Amino acid sequence: MIKIGIVGGTGYTGVELLRILARHPQAQLTAITSRKEAGMRVADLFPSLRGSVDLPFSDPGAVDLSKCDVVFFATPHGVAMEQAPRLVEAGVRIIDLAADFRLKDLVEWKKWYKADHTCPQLVEQAVYGLPELNREKIRRARVIGVPGCYATAVQLGFLPLVEAGVVDSQHLIADSKSGVSGAGRKAEVHTLFSEAADNFKAYGVSGHRHLPEILQGLGQVSGRAVNVTFIPHLTPMIRGIHATLYARLTQEVDVQALYERRFAHEPFVDVLPAGSQPDTRSVRGANQCRIAVHRPAGGDTLVVLAVIDNLVKGASGQAVQNMNIMFGLDEKAGLEMLALLP
Amino acid sequence: MIKIGIVGGTGYTGVELLRILARHPQAQLTAITSRKEAGMRVADLFPSLRGSVDLPFSDPGAVDLSKCDVVFFATPHGVAMEQAPRLVEAGVRIIDLAADFRLKDLVEWKKWYKADHTCPQLVEQAVYGLPELNREKIRRARVIGVPGCYATAVQLGFLPLVEAGVVDSQHLIADSKSGVSGAGRKAEVHTLFSEAADNFKAYGVSGHRHLPEILQGLGQVSGRAVNVTFIPHLTPMIRGIHATLYARLTQEVDVQALYERRFAHEPFVDVLPAGSQPDTRSVRGANQCRIAVHRPAGGDTLVVLAVIDNLVKGASGQAVQNMNIMFGLDEKAGLEMLALLP
Amino acid sequence: MIKIGIVGGTGYTGVELLRILARHPQAQLTAITSRKEAGMRVADLFPSLRGSVDLPFSDPGAVDLSKCDVVFFATPHGVAMEQAPRLVEAGVRIIDLAADFRLKDLVEWKKWYKADHTCPQLVEQAVYGLPELNREKIRRARVIGVPGCYATAVQLGFLPLVEAGVVDSQHLIADSKSGVSGAGRKAEVHTLFSEAADNFKAYGVSGHRHLPEILQGLGQVSGRAVNVTFIPHLTPMIRGIHATLYARLTQEVDVQALYERRFAHEPFVDVLPAGSQPDTRSVRGANQCRIAVHRPAGGDTLVVLAVIDNLVKGASGQAVQNMNIMFGLDEKAGLEMLALLP
Amino acid sequence: MIKIGIVGGTGYTGVELLRILARHPQAQLTAITSRKEAGMRVADLFPSLRGSVDLPFSDPGAVDLSKCDVVFFATPHGVAMEQAPRLVEAGVRIIDLAADFRLKDLVEWKKWYKADHTCPQLVEQAVYGLPELNREKIRRARVIGVPGCYATAVQLGFLPLVEAGVVDSQHLIADSKSGVSGAGRKAEVHTLFSEAADNFKAYGVSGHRHLPEILQGLGQVSGRAVNVTFIPHLTPMIRGIHATLYARLTQEVDVQALYERRFAHEPFVDVLPAGSQPDTRSVRGANQCRIAVHRPAGGDTLVVLAVIDNLVKGASGQAVQNMNIMFGLDEKAGLEMLALLP
Repeated sequence: MIKIGIVGGTGYTGVELLRILARHPQAQLTAITSRKEAGMRVADLFPSLRGSVDLPFSDPGAVDLSKCDVVFFATPHGVAMEQAPRLVEAGVRIIDLAADFRLKDLVEWKKWYKADHTCPQLVEQAVYGLPELNREKIRRARVIGVPGCYATAVQLGFLPLVEAGVVDSQHLIADSKSGVSGAGRKAEVHTLFSEAADNFKAYGVSGHRHLPEILQGLGQVSGRAVNVTFIPHLTPMIRGIHATLYARLTQEVDVQALYERRFAHEPFVDVLPAGSQPDTRSVRGANQCRIAVHRPAGGDTLVVLAVIDNLVKGASGQAVQNMNIMFGLDEKAGLEMLALLP
Repeated sequence: MIKIGIVGGTGYTGVELLRILARHPQAQLTAITSRKEAGMRVADLFPSLRGSVDLPFSDPGAVDLSKCDVVFFATPHGVAMEQAPRLVEAGVRIIDLAADFRLKDLVEWKKWYKADHTCPQLVEQAVYGLPELNREKIRRARVIGVPGCYATAVQLGFLPLVEAGVVDSQHLIADSKSGVSGAGRKAEVHTLFSEAADNFKAYGVSGHRHLPEILQGLGQVSGRAVNVTFIPHLTPMIRGIHATLYARLTQEVDVQALYERRFAHEPFVDVLPAGSQPDTRSVRGANQCRIAVHRPAGGDTLVVLAVIDNLVKGASGQAVQNMNIMFGLDEKAGLEMLALLP
Repeated sequence: MIKIGIVGGTGYTGVELLRILARHPQAQLTAITSRKEAGMRVADLFPSLRGSVDLPFSDPGAVDLSKCDVVFFATPHGVAMEQAPRLVEAGVRIIDLAADFRLKDLVEWKKWYKADHTCPQLVEQAVYGLPELNREKIRRARVIGVPGCYATAVQLGFLPLVEAGVVDSQHLIADSKSGVSGAGRKAEVHTLFSEAADNFKAYGVSGHRHLPEILQGLGQVSGRAVNVTFIPHLTPMIRGIHATLYARLTQEVDVQALYERRFAHEPFVDVLPAGSQPDTRSVRGANQCRIAVHRPAGGDTLVVLAVIDNLVKGASGQAVQNMNIMFGLDEKAGLEMLALLP
Repeated sequence: MIKIGIVGGTGYTGVELLRILARHPQAQLTAITSRKEAGMRVADLFPSLRGSVDLPFSDPGAVDLSKCDVVFFATPHGVAMEQAPRLVEAGVRIIDLAADFRLKDLVEWKKWYKADHTCPQLVEQAVYGLPELNREKIRRARVIGVPGCYATAVQLGFLPLVEAGVVDSQHLIADSKSGVSGAGRKAEVHTLFSEAADNFKAYGVSGHRHLPEILQGLGQVSGRAVNVTFIPHLTPMIRGIHATLYARLTQEVDVQALYERRFAHEPFVDVLPAGSQPDTRSVRGANQCRIAVHRPAGGDTLVVLAVIDNLVKGASGQAVQNMNIMFGLDEKAGLEMLALLP
C-alpha cells in the first residue's frame, strides 16, 4: 500500500482526489491537512464521502508528512514550493496539482505567478506530468508538476500535429471552454450561480496562465518555439473542458490515421471515429480525453475537438495516473470509473 | 459470474445499469436488446461506455435470453409482463425497472397504467424490490418490481414513523422534487432544455403513478391504509430526488434515535446527524439515500428530508442491489462508487 | 417626473430596480450611491444597462438625497434604519427593500436580525408594502418595508384561505423553492455555480427570517396568531420562487371561486384556471404572481401553487408598485414588461 | 397601427415575436395561425402572455391574411415560400424568420435545404434583412429574409474587417456557441434537458446551414468570395450566441477605431471599450449585439467577440427591426427593452 498525504484538500481538486483515492486498491490515505478546516472531519465538509473517508483535516503543523510515500499538493500556487524541499529530502515523492513545478523558465513563471520561485533546484529536476508526453521521465521523477486543465486538453489535441510537423505551428488557435469548477471553490462574484448560469463569456483574452505551459510542451515536441492564440471561455456547466483547435495544414497527411497511431497505446486518450463530435459529458467523472479530428470542406484548416473532465484528466485523475506510473503500479489502477451520463 | 441480459437499455436507466454492471465484479453482460437500435454498438449510442461495453444492441427476436441467470427490463411499462412468463418458466430471474410488478392490486394497476395486466399470476409471486422493507422476500424472489424513484425516497423517508405508529398517517404530505432525467430519454417538449432549465413547476398534482406504490408500501408497514398528499415537482437538474416530508406527531418520541435505529444496519441508507440538510449532489451517481429529520420550532409537525439519485438508488442501483441479494452476493458488490461532487 | 435616489444598487435588487426605472415613464433617476463602487459608471458594472443608465455610483457622503422625492434602499439589512430618519424629516419617501421596516415587533426583529433597531418611531408609522393587503395604507405612507420574496409568495398564496377562515391556520405548511439570486450578489461558497448547479437542498429548516413576516401578515388578516411550517429550498435556477402551500380545510368552500374573487381586481395577481400548474418562468422578469389551487383526490388537504420572480414581484418590481401607489401614478406604470420565455 | 399577421408562432421565435409585438406602440396583432394548435388560446400555450395576448391560434385555412400590412412567418423552412406569392400579390409585406428568402443562389439553397425552391421570382426581389448591411434596401423591400442567428453574430463581428479589407478573408474562423433555444421547440432527444445540461459539444462541423448566408453576406461586402471555417457548439444555456472570431491581419490598422466608426450610428450594435469581454446575458432578451475586439500579445491574429440573444437580435427582434424600417417607424420602436440580468 502506498502511504499518501494530501496538503490542502478543501477545494475541488482535493475532494476529487479523495473520491479517487478512497477506491484505489493500493492507496492508503494517512493524512490530509488544512489550516482553515483543521479538526473538521472531511466527510462533514463533503458529505459525499461519508462512510468512505474517515479522516479529519489535520493542522499542517501537527502532522509529519515525511512518513508518507507521496504527498499531493491540492493547494493554491506557491504552497508546494515552500514545503516540497524538506519532504523531497526525506525521500517523499511530490505531486503538485498547482503550478509550482510546471514551468522550467522561472522568468516566465514569475511573470505569470507574480512571485519569485523559492526552490529553483527542484524545478530543474521536476517533471511535467503529462504521461502521454513524459511517461519515462515520470517513472523516475521525485517531483511532478501536474499540468493545468486547459493545458492538458490543448496539448493532447495538438500533439500529433506538432510532433509530425505538418501544420503551421506559428498560428495555432485554441478556442477553449471550461466548466465553472475550473475556477475552484473560492467565493468570488463572477463564479456565483446567478452570474455564471445561463451565460457564456470569454475571459483572460489578453493572457492566461495555462498559455506558457502549452507553449513549453508543444515547443518541446516541435523542437522550436510555437505560437498559440489561446482564448478560454467560462461555460455554464460544472465540469468539462472542450478545446476546439484550429491549425493550418502545411502538407498532405491522413490526420485520422496520424491521431490513431499516436495514441494507440494510451490508456486514457480515445481517438474517436472520423466524423465524431465528442461531448464533455462523455468523460464526466472519468480519467479520459476523447479526441476527434475534422477537415471541414476539405480545406487546409484542420479542426480538432478534445474533451476532458477538468477535475479528472485535467487534475486529480491525472495526478493519480502520475502516482501509478511513479510507483510501478498498473497505470489504470483506481482510474477505471466510467463517465456519469446523463 | 452471473449471466445477465438486458431488455431495452437505450434509456437512462439502461445506460446507468450498464455503467454499474460494466464494473460489477460478478456480472457478465451477455446480451442487450433493442428493437429500434438493433445492430448499433452500445458505445456508439453512449460514448461514455467506449472501451468498457463492447456489445451491440441485439434484435429482441434474435437472441435467446433464457440462457441468462437474470434479465433486467429497462423498458416502458407493459413490456416485462409480456416477456416475463416464458423467461421465468425457463428459470430466469426477472428484475423489472418499470411498473409491471410493483402493484399487487390489479384494479389499481389498470387505473394508473390504462391497460389490463397480462400476467396476474406473476404479480402475485413478484416481490416489491425495496430491500429496506422486503429483504428476505427478495432473497427468494423470482420476479422483482423495482420501486419507482419517488416511491423509494418517500417510503424510506416515512418508514420509521409509520412503522412506529407515531404520526397521523392519514395526513402525510410528500412534497417531492425530481431532476429531469426521471422523465426518461423520450423526446418530449416539456423536458427540452429550453423548457425545463431555469424553471420550476409542480406537475401531476391531480395524481401521479408513484402514489399507489407509496400507499401500498406504507400501508403494509402501518397495518392499515394510509393517506398521502404527494406533489411532484420538475427541478432543473439532471439527477436527484429531494423529498420533503411532513407528518403530524401523535405521540412524543426521539425521532433522531428512531431513524438511526431503524437504518443502523442498512448499507445504503445514511441517517445524517441532527440538524443536517442533505443536498442531492451528495448522492449523485451513488446508490445511497441520505435522510435528515427535523422538528421546526419544537412543534408537532415533523419534517423529513430524504435524497437519492433517481437513476441509482431510485432505479438501476437498486435493481443491482436486488440482484445481489437474490444471488447471495455481497449486497454492496458493484455499488460502492462514491457520489460525484461537485 | 418623480426624482429618485437609490442607496446601494450594486446587488441584484439594485440592478433590477435600475432595469425597471430606466424604462418607467415618470421616473427620473437622480443619484445612486455605493461606498464600494463610488466613481464607477453603473453601466460598467452592469453592461446590460449600457446606453440606458448613464450615471456613475456616487459616494454616499457626496450626494444630497434630500432633494429626491423618494429614496430606495437596496442595501443590506440595517442601512435604511440609519439613514431614513433624516430623509423622512426632509420630506423624502422611503422604500426599503431590506428588512428594516417589515416587522412591527422589535423584539422579534432583534431576534432574527441580531441587532437593536435604531429608529423604532419610523417602524411604527412604516407600512408593510404588500399592496394586495395594505394598498390604502401604502397610499399615505412615508416609509415602506418591501416584503421579502418568500414572504410575498407565501402570503399571497394563503391570503384568501386565511381571510376567509376556512382552513386550520395553526398547521399551515409552506414548502418554498427559490432561485439562487434570492441569496444576493455576495461572494459565498454555497451559492457558487459549482455548488448550486445540478443540486437541490433545503436550508434554514430551523428558522428563516421571512417566517416572522409571514406570521405577522397572515396573523393580521386572520385576527389571531397563525402557525406556519416554512421550509425554504435552494433551487438551481437564477430567478423564481415556487411556493407549494398545504392547508387543511375546516369547512366546505369553493376555493377556486374564493381565489378568483379575492384577486379579481389585483393587477399583478393572476389566478389560473382550475387544474393549472404554474411554472416560475411564466413570471420571469415580470411583476406577476400566478396562483393555482388544487384539492387532490377531493380530500381535506388543499394545495396552493404560487409563483413569482423573486427579484420583481418579490423585490424591485413590488418596490416600484409601492412607489406608483404612493405617488398616485397608474399602479402598473413601468411594470408591464412581459415574462421572458423561454 | 400596423396590422400584423403571424404564421406559425408556436415555436420560440413565435412566442418571442408575440412578447415584443404585444408591447409595440404601433403594432396591432390581427391573427396568428397554427394548424396544430388551431382553436387554442395563445396564452394557454404560453402563460407568460396571459393578460396581454388575447387571440386564439386560427386555422390557416380559416383566416384571410391578405388584409394584413405585414405577415411574419415563424415557421419551418419551406412554408413561407409556399404562401408568400399570393400575399405579396395582395400587397402584404413578408418577413420570413426561416431561411426561404436568405440565399440568392438557389442551387446553394437546394443543397442545404434539400428541396427545390418554389418561388425564385420572390427570392430575386427579397432583401436579406440585416439592417447594418442592407438598411436602404430593407426600406423598399416587399419580402425580407431575416438572417439566421449565427449568421447575424458572425457577419456583424467580421463586417468592419472584411469591408476594410484588412484581413486574410480566405481563412476566417468563426468558433460559435449557441444556447439551446436556437434549436427550436421541437421534441428531439439531443436537446432534452438531460442531454444538453451540464454538457458542451460541437455539432455540424462538416457543414451548417448558416454558413452559406455568412459567405454570401461577407462576400458581398468583400467584393470577392470569402472563406470561413464555421464551427457551431451547443451550450447549456437557454438563450445567447457568443461568436469568437479569428482573422489574420494583412495590414496595420487601429481595429478598435475601425469598429467604433463602423457602428457609430447603429442603434443595436454596441462596440465595447478596448479590453472588454462581453457576456451573453448582457443582451438576454434585448435587441442588441455587443462586440469587443482584441489582438492578443500584439500578434497578427485578431480576436473578435460578438454576442447576441439568438431569439431577439438573432431572430424576432431583428424581424421587428426590419418591420420598423419597412414602415418608416422609429427603428427602435418596441425594441428598447433592457437585458434581463441576472
